[in-house]
Amino acid sequence: MTSGRSGELSKRTLENLRYLLDPRSVAVIGASRSPIKWGSIILKHVVEGGFKGEIYPVNPNEQTLMGFKAYPKVPEETDLALIVTPAKTVPSLLRECAERGVKSAVIISAGFGETGKEGEEREKELVRIAEEGGLPFVGPNCMGVFSATSSLSALMASVKPLKGNISFLSQSGNLGTQLLDRGTYYQLGFDVFVSTGNEAFLRCEDLIEVLRERKSTKVILAYIEGVKDGRKFFEVARRTSPTKPIVVLKVGKTRAGSRAAKSHTGSLSGSGQVYTGVFRQAGVVEVESTEDLLKVAMALEQPLPQNNQVIILTRGGGWGVTAADACREDLVEVPPPPPHILEEMNSFMPPYWSRGNPIDTVAELDPSLEFKILKTIEKWEAGGLIVLGGLDAYATRFLDGELRKVYVREVQMPLIKRLIALNRRGKTVFAVALKPLDKSRPVKLLRKHHIPVYFSPEDAGRAYSKLMEYKRMRERLKRTGEA
Amino acid sequence: MTSGRSGELSKRTLENLRYLLDPRSVAVIGASRSPIKWGSIILKHVVEGGFKGEIYPVNPNEQTLMGFKAYPKVPEETDLALIVTPAKTVPSLLRECAERGVKSAVIISAGFGETGKEGEEREKELVRIAEEGGLPFVGPNCMGVFSATSSLSALMASVKPLKGNISFLSQSGNLGTQLLDRGTYYQLGFDVFVSTGNEAFLRCEDLIEVLRERKSTKVILAYIEGVKDGRKFFEVARRTSPTKPIVVLKVGKTRAGSRAAKSHTGSLSGSGQVYTGVFRQAGVVEVESTEDLLKVAMALEQPLPQNNQVIILTRGGGWGVTAADACREDLVEVPPPPPHILEEMNSFMPPYWSRGNPIDTVAELDPSLEFKILKTIEKWEAGGLIVLGGLDAYATRFLDGELRKVYVREVQMPLIKRLIALNRRGKTVFAVALKPLDKSRPVKLLRKHHIPVYFSPEDAGRAYSKLMEYKRMRERLKRTGEA
Repeated sequence: MTSGRSGELSKRTLENLRYLLDPRSVAVIGASRSPIKWGSIILKHVVEGGFKGEIYPVNPNEQTLMGFKAYPKVPEETDLALIVTPAKTVPSLLRECAERGVKSAVIISAGFGETGKEGEEREKELVRIAEEGGLPFVGPNCMGVFSATSSLSALMASVKPLKGNISFLSQSGNLGTQLLDRGTYYQLGFDVFVSTGNEAFLRCEDLIEVLRERKSTKVILAYIEGVKDGRKFFEVARRTSPTKPIVVLKVGKTRAGSRAAKSHTGSLSGSGQVYTGVFRQAGVVEVESTEDLLKVAMALEQPLPQNNQVIILTRGGGWGVTAADACREDLVEVPPPPPHILEEMNSFMPPYWSRGNPIDTVAELDPSLEFKILKTIEKWEAGGLIVLGGLDAYATRFLDGELRKVYVREVQMPLIKRLIALNRRGKTVFAVALKPLDKSRPVKLLRKHHIPVYFSPEDAGRAYSKLMEYKRMRERLKRTGEA
Repeated sequence: MTSGRSGELSKRTLENLRYLLDPRSVAVIGASRSPIKWGSIILKHVVEGGFKGEIYPVNPNEQTLMGFKAYPKVPEETDLALIVTPAKTVPSLLRECAERGVKSAVIISAGFGETGKEGEEREKELVRIAEEGGLPFVGPNCMGVFSATSSLSALMASVKPLKGNISFLSQSGNLGTQLLDRGTYYQLGFDVFVSTGNEAFLRCEDLIEVLRERKSTKVILAYIEGVKDGRKFFEVARRTSPTKPIVVLKVGKTRAGSRAAKSHTGSLSGSGQVYTGVFRQAGVVEVESTEDLLKVAMALEQPLPQNNQVIILTRGGGWGVTAADACREDLVEVPPPPPHILEEMNSFMPPYWSRGNPIDTVAELDPSLEFKILKTIEKWEAGGLIVLGGLDAYATRFLDGELRKVYVREVQMPLIKRLIALNRRGKTVFAVALKPLDKSRPVKLLRKHHIPVYFSPEDAGRAYSKLMEYKRMRERLKRTGEA
């Protein structure tokens, strides 16, 4: 275990912490003229990201940088200092920040607890400075922070995340920024991203607490190699998950993965089973892969299903089978249509229709059928609906030019609007677009209304199960909380 | 269970079967002038696919169709008849095929065993005709066939698969053609695709036998809802898998999925556990999702690893951890570097490098480091190498215009060539491109040499484990086969 802070955050630290994600001014300590230095890359990202407050490049050898006045020392009115200088210089610079009343810091520089004895000592010094000065900091050895509300993009990687309601804490900067980037493919918007690095001072669990109170965050994601304060993590998570879902990918579960995590961020991974048990008790949704963080986040933006029944509407038998198979039987029921629905469907479906759920629209080229089906489904009390194909670019693959445009305008868009209306009236709706990374008009409209769009039937079924898992855990927490 | 043929295929049927995937001539029975009828769509796909043999549209009311002479009846010299007419007309048309000496048929039309009593009777009649006439047929209720060697694209969907060595049998036409299409995103080439439909006559297990003997097929994929002749499937698979890997997705494992499969193709899914046991004994690699069929197929094009050790080379700690975690510990070892490798690495790596495996190139911007690492790795006896990032479009995200071009030419391409050389000398190589569906020059070159390229570290680790699983099963089968 690397060095770390000793206990709870002081009152002054907590007050300062509010500025980390909503700073009125940002100083880049180590800003530079050389285009291949991190100091200049990060300054560039802050500027290009359209940060709403003041920007102070700090470099004693420059007058201006990127058109901004450069400062020899960090200005006293700085809310957030980004430190991007060689490891050896960081302690004295952080001390200067504390002395000049800077509110918060992100230490991007590497060369601390992750590199051996000398680095560990240096990291301990940072913690002492922060504790004495009431100056909360993220890192060291991290890749920066993003905050949608301030248009702050203080990141090493040149990603431009969509703005939205998902917040993401990552103990890996590279992996974190890559997922931030990949969110764009799912048209998933982010509110906050923090690359937590070595977590010498601010830890994942502290930041979950911050995000719990943050109105613009609806779902919290975390990539975790190891938790420093297990008890606090559990308590914070347990208090957060009844109102805001937390989705966690815990890695380092194998021997090789655990060794790799230790050398990466100095984390002790601990037993995978212990973590899984803790997560479940705290109402945390656990996922098994990086990509699933995004897929499940998308699901959790939907309203919780009113019951455990789901209708699957499909344009192909195989898709229906795989989607149904992917629904976890202990959480999701895919029941046959009740008699009144069956009767109504029989009145307009072709005689050979399957009379089951998944409802197969039997590849009929007659689009009016889908409108009739959706109208009938409205009267079916099942809490959720998964729509496979028909509503995306893939559905138009048989059609040429003009015919495709007419189809999109006259069939797809009205169908989408009906789905959105159904969703507004309380049915949980998931869609599957069968062309990967589809950004067609229908898919965009669905995403605009926070309806998840997956690129395979299994993804939809699995994510729906995760939404139900969260619902079940939340109900249990609320029950035991009241008792 | 729907109707089906009674026993083994006759000698004459087996002889005719050779023409199914390598026909010298194709008749489209039900070809039409109307652009929204399947008969015309399929004719169009055959023509546009560049079929190498003769094309005979069959329609008694037309003189020519799409520039081809139209025939009132199927010509006697037809090797493959595609039947796309209403269900009621199919038995007499198939009889005509048999009487006129047509070698093989694909019945695309629906309205048979999947639709109830009357359809079942009709399907039985097809089987009788085929058995009497020695005329093997695929379907009914299917979406067609594709064969790279003949450039035959007799499909309902307008997909243009890349040509290659993967063959795919699918009991779902929609899902099958969608995956065929999606293969393009992984730059995965196909040799044969058969949508097997109701499998009234030719079954998945018959076609595996055909593919076993087919030189251009290196890997066999199958999407299975239910197997008609379990014993034959087992025997064929067991004889095939020691020389050619078979990858299966078996669906209908949940109650809802099983009901859906029954109404889709009339398959009885049977117990998932029983299937899993049979697959394992027969050396079949089982996967859990449609997308995994493609991901694992890509892995199985690589040479089998010479031992169970793998080296992971990464540009980011988190990626390394997740990739290592995804390697199944019972199959793949991610060992620390042996002393002679460690010593060599220490001589050129920065002092704070992790000294472990995954080898983290520590986000150094100095590209010569990666060349040195690859050179050192050549002397490490581990059978496999997984390279994460650095070799793909994502790696160049920090670089602008001209600088990017120079980097690709001077750094990435030489690195790729070194990897390919390493692969040729017997090391199994997997790569991860961190931009989804990356089609950059480096990725294209890797794929051209059949090196798998995944879009997430977990996918690489999981697929590598599947390759090892196949290796292990194959060794066991060869041992017991000799005993």
